[in-house]
Amino acid sequence: MKVTYLHNTIKVVKIGGNVVDNESMLEAFCKDFAALEGPKVLVHGGGVMASSIQQALGQTPVKIEGRRVTDEDTVKVVTMVYAGWCNKHITALLQGFGCNAIGLSGCDASVIRARKRAPRTLSDGVTQVDYGFVGDVKGESVNAEMVQKLLDMGLTPVFCAINHDGKGNLLNTNADTIASSVAIALRAELLLCFEKKGVLMDKNEENSVIPHIDLAYYHTLKEQGIVDEGMLPKLENAFKALREGAKRVVIRSSQGLSDGSGTVISLG
Amino acid sequence: MKVTYLHNTIKVVKIGGNVVDNESMLEAFCKDFAALEGPKVLVHGGGVMASSIQQALGQTPVKIEGRRVTDEDTVKVVTMVYAGWCNKHITALLQGFGCNAIGLSGCDASVIRARKRAPRTLSDGVTQVDYGFVGDVKGESVNAEMVQKLLDMGLTPVFCAINHDGKGNLLNTNADTIASSVAIALRAELLLCFEKKGVLMDKNEENSVIPHIDLAYYHTLKEQGIVDEGMLPKLENAFKALREGAKRVVIRSSQGLSDGSGTVISLG
Repeated sequence: MKVTYLHNTIKVVKIGGNVVDNESMLEAFCKDFAALEGPKVLVHGGGVMASSIQQALGQTPVKIEGRRVTDEDTVKVVTMVYAGWCNKHITALLQGFGCNAIGLSGCDASVIRARKRAPRTLSDGVTQVDYGFVGDVKGESVNAEMVQKLLDMGLTPVFCAINHDGKGNLLNTNADTIASSVAIALRAELLLCFEKKGVLMDKNEENSVIPHIDLAYYHTLKEQGIVDEGMLPKLENAFKALREGAKRVVIRSSQGLSDGSGTVISLG
Repeated sequence: MKVTYLHNTIKVVKIGGNVVDNESMLEAFCKDFAALEGPKVLVHGGGVMASSIQQALGQTPVKIEGRRVTDEDTVKVVTMVYAGWCNKHITALLQGFGCNAIGLSGCDASVIRARKRAPRTLSDGVTQVDYGFVGDVKGESVNAEMVQKLLDMGLTPVFCAINHDGKGNLLNTNADTIASSVAIALRAELLLCFEKKGVLMDKNEENSVIPHIDLAYYHTLKEQGIVDEGMLPKLENAFKALREGAKRVVIRSSQGLSDGSGTVISLG
């Protein structure tokens, strides 16, 4: 069964560090993305460059429960890497492939306003951590009207995960959350790209892609232990996005964007 | 004599590294710029951060006749610093002061397309130098229609000096040239900000600002040796911009943007 994308629906495509860090993969992706028909948005993660630059500058990258602790020096580095090199390199590549891309951080035209994360207690229930310049975003954080105006001008917004609080501060946010939030705000189809061709029935068998998972089937797969720990948060986020307004979610590979592969996620 | 800005004319304001590198000066400037009435554009230089990051990464900054030789590693660093930290920091600050800024590199919506500089012979007439990923820009390189559309949406474009060649490559360009080119393309008033209050009659007397210089007076000042070597290229560029379509040029300090100080440059 081939996955065809929804007609007349904005597509929000998310790629992660595995693509951003790999030059030939990134170029191939940009070529495919440029050729994708209809209005579209790209959201990209950052990759490992931020950590290596932090180290070169004598900073020590600190991650707690998967999120980077972002002090004043760190927010400079992640802004340089994500909003600077990654975002502009991808935008220039897309322009080279004939796609009229516009690279955006949340501060640009205030397209996304994040909320600085308050110090929080870790999962051990005891340790308090202040993540610093880290922000949280949800659907209503996105200025959908402004993004729609840019789309109506024939532009293709390219988002990195650097946003602002509206008070002059830049905040480091999570690219997956940006992608869901933009898809929710635009009532879009969300294409979450990762290393595999889709959600696999057998994780050792690359071609065992499950074509369609609805909420009921998801519960079955979870009970049977077929979806593993790496996949669970992706699926949880997909269902959350659908409940909040995204039209459809497809979990798929960044390669061959129009090859009809991937797993369609829907509520019912 | 107080300088008042032209009514109903787009203002293009240029600030250099001396402002970008000084946090309290930058914040004060952003506050003043945000309060400036009418449609406006900001163009900023980069400052010394690029060189210090190059050094931290083990690269050796090379400048020949004032321009940075920009190899593949260098273009990454300047894009990170100028298009990343500087551009987004300024944009977020302006947002904090209520100005709906949008940070742009030339690749974004292809607002500026630069031409990669061919290897050239230096002023010694002998040495050939390949500047690498360095681009040249002129008035017709600017997509005036797109910039005007953004202005019409109530946005304030903030340009750094990173542009693209339309073939997927980012190019390092000169911020003064970007400012002139944008002013020419938009038939705008160009405010060139620097350390002094204007062109000085006596360079040791900060308050000896010459209120108005036209082409005839410029030749007189040059003959009398009143304008020195640092000021000559600024004035030459100002007259060039005027000849090519900029409405007026004001050379002034970045401080107190609406205080009526500065030197007005005009052709006649």
